Order: sequence, then C-alpha cells, then structure tokens
Amino acid sequence: MAHTHESGIMAARLEASKGYEEGGIPIGSVLVDRNGEILGRGHNERIQRSSPTLHAEIAALENAGRQKAEVYRHSVLYTTLSPCSMCTGAILLYKIPCVVIGENTNFKGDEDLLRARGVEVIIMDDQECKELMKRFICEHPEEWNEDIGEPA
Amino acid sequence: MAHTHESGIMAARLEASKGYEEGGIPIGSVLVDRNGEILGRGHNERIQRSSPTLHAEIAALENAGRQKAEVYRHSVLYTTLSPCSMCTGAILLYKIPCVVIGENTNFKGDEDLLRARGVEVIIMDDQECKELMKRFICEHPEEWNEDIGEPA
Repeated sequence: MAHTHESGIMAARLEASKGYEEGGIPIGSVLVDRNGEILGRGHNERIQRSSPTLHAEIAALENAGRQKAEVYRHSVLYTTLSPCSMCTGAILLYKIPCVVIGENTNFKGDEDLLRARGVEVIIMDDQECKELMKRFICEHPEEWNEDIGEPA
Repeated sequence: MAHTHESGIMAARLEASKGYEEGGIPIGSVLVDRNGEILGRGHNERIQRSSPTLHAEIAALENAGRQKAEVYRHSVLYTTLSPCSMCTGAILLYKIPCVVIGENTNFKGDEDLLRARGVEVIIMDDQECKELMKRFICEHPEEWNEDIGEPA
C-alpha cells in the first residue's frame, strides 16, 4: 500500500536501492492505483539487463502488466528522479494524471511538458533520493550520461 | 542494409507482418545507423508478451542494445505507424534526428512535438502499412484501443 506520497516515494526509493545494490543506475519507480495498491514496481535495468529502454518508470509500467485505460487514468506514478522524455511520453500515452518525483536536482526531465499537458507534478525534494543519485553519478559518469542520451 | 527510406520502411513492414502472424498488433520498426545497417528490429509485443511498453519503436531500440549517444544521433528510426507519445519521447531522449513513418492515417501520434524539437519527420503514406493496420483495428478494436491508452 502507498496511501501517502511519502510512502509511495519510499517504495520507489527501495527499488532505487535494489538497483544500486545490483550495480545498476539507482532510479526506482512504482505505479499505484486509486486504492493505494502498488500495481507495479521497477528500477532502471540499463546495466543489469543491458537495456536502453528499461528506465525505472518503464520497468514499473511493464511489471504492472496490461491494464485498462481506466486504471491508468486513476493512478499515480512515483519515481525517485525527474522523468526523461521517454518516461514522460509513457505517462502521457497512458494519461496518468499525477506524477510524484523524488528529486529533480541531479536531473530535470520533461516536467514542463507534463504540466503543459495537464499532468499534476509534485516534487518531493527528497534528500535520500538526491544523495543516492549523486553518489552514482560521481562513481559512474559514463553510464549515467549514456542513460540520458548524452556523450560520455 | 536500408539505404533508402523505401527499404527502411520495407524492413519495418516485415516486422509488422511478423507481429500480425503471431496474433499481435501489426506495427514494426527498425533503427538504422549512418551506414544503412540495421541496428535493431522490433514489433509491438503487447499481446505476445503481455507488454504495455514494448511498442514497435521501443522494441527496436531495445533489440539494438546499449548504443553510444553518437550512434543514435546519426541514426534513422523507421516505423510503420506514427509514433505515440511514449515512442516520441524515446526518440527525443536519444536525439534521433530523423523518423520515417509508414503512415499516419490510422493513428497520428506526437509528430508535432517531434518537429517542434527539431526532428525531421517523413511520412511515406504507404498503402501496405495502412491496409494491414486498418485490418487489425477492425478485427481487434479493444486491443488497439488498449495500446493507445484509450477505453475499449
């Protein structure tokens, strides 16, 4: 259950930590339905599965499986880091109305596009999210740049 | 090799046909590098793998594996159908400069956003792409609507 934004971000942070422990990029995400139930959890799998598309948010959506349009339209997506253009587009595709973001200090994605298309965007400015992400970026700048489509 | 836009779309159409033969949503895509080599091929896997995120373009990127930023920035993405918001976002993430689209009659995705962000968008208005997609939509309207995040 993730009845509050704090508990939703905590669940996303657990995924990020799991990714970090696996040697991966520590970004986590969960998709939560209207009743506060977690439908899907995921973390970035670039390194673990050599995947250029399994960002945390995509992984959470994938792990939630096929859902009806109505489910997405009453869900909240939690993510430890501001969503990139691809994950922003996935949120728009499924018309997820609310995105709660752990932090946007280490990376600011396409938040303005989300807002322009009517998505509620909540920034938690979470210290733990910031610290873990910052640590990874310092340790593995090349992998991080690859993940956001930037040259090494 | 896919040295012309016609041969690129032909390769994407082969993927779409493969998807249709598998009982899936017939959308195909290929990512082609600066030398005309196909880096990755893919088709929509919603039905086959119960996947809400493996649209054709995402599958092609995934099957291309991890690539350097420079590779994407000199690539062309071919897709049989106008890309949805998620696939548009993936194109923007990796700064793919050119997208060649088989048709946008059965569905028009986020082409305007691509153009606004400087991506070259070429519409082939391909009759075979249109016919196969139209056939699937008539046969399976519910799966199609699910794929674009719309109610059944």
